[in-house]
Amino acid sequence: MKYSTRLSDTLHVLAFLVLGEGQRMTSTMIAESIRTNPAYIRQLMSALKNAGIIASTQGQANPRLTREASEITMLDVYRAVEGNKPLLHLDVATNPECGVGVNIQLAISDFYGDVQQVAEQTMQTITLQDILERYREKLENLR
Amino acid sequence: MKYSTRLSDTLHVLAFLVLGEGQRMTSTMIAESIRTNPAYIRQLMSALKNAGIIASTQGQANPRLTREASEITMLDVYRAVEGNKPLLHLDVATNPECGVGVNIQLAISDFYGDVQQVAEQTMQTITLQDILERYREKLENLR
Repeated sequence: MKYSTRLSDTLHVLAFLVLGEGQRMTSTMIAESIRTNPAYIRQLMSALKNAGIIASTQGQANPRLTREASEITMLDVYRAVEGNKPLLHLDVATNPECGVGVNIQLAISDFYGDVQQVAEQTMQTITLQDILERYREKLENLR
Repeated sequence: MKYSTRLSDTLHVLAFLVLGEGQRMTSTMIAESIRTNPAYIRQLMSALKNAGIIASTQGQANPRLTREASEITMLDVYRAVEGNKPLLHLDVATNPECGVGVNIQLAISDFYGDVQQVAEQTMQTITLQDILERYREKLENLR
């Protein structure tokens, strides 16, 4: 089973943009840090642009945040790259001819909704600024 | 990206065991309801047995819950089949030579821990009994 690391990678991209502010920043440079391919990074950045979190001047490799890092929450970034995908996944392929099947999944779905809600409430309290500050603390502890 | 539906499928198996109590129940019958293969169902049931949530008499197809449905939480089932896998996934493949990379992921990790904690706290308040009751409500609303 492969797990999506889109949220982690996108937060990484955003951190990179803040830390390298003012410098020329290409998807290839960011891809090297995340050890992935530039096409994937461009896909994430395109999602961030569509969500209005970053903007760039046409033809220039200088994407920038459209608002303060303290105004960008983990939930904003999650929505941008994962949309409305939930954290827990129903099995939507159960046998529709089995009376138990569909209704059990619907019952489970209600409770997954509760888990999703508290998770999203927490994600909304965590900002890119918080992550950058924690990062700086970790760097300082290494010294 | 494929998502794990192990938790949903295992809750489904448990509901099936309760609803069909006393009846002979093979992995093939359960697999038909979930529209999957018996080997996958046996794998989930084996995880439930290892976690002490179900037990069966040697050589008989009559697995049963070892405790009341109201004593089995969604978190118990999650731990049984997903272990300590988190809901949000770090990218552990970032470039170790990139100073930003490792420490940004470590910073993100702290905050994912907060999300995981509230999600697990909620999963701990949801029992198999709650899911079965919700299921019965759904069936009644259909009548």
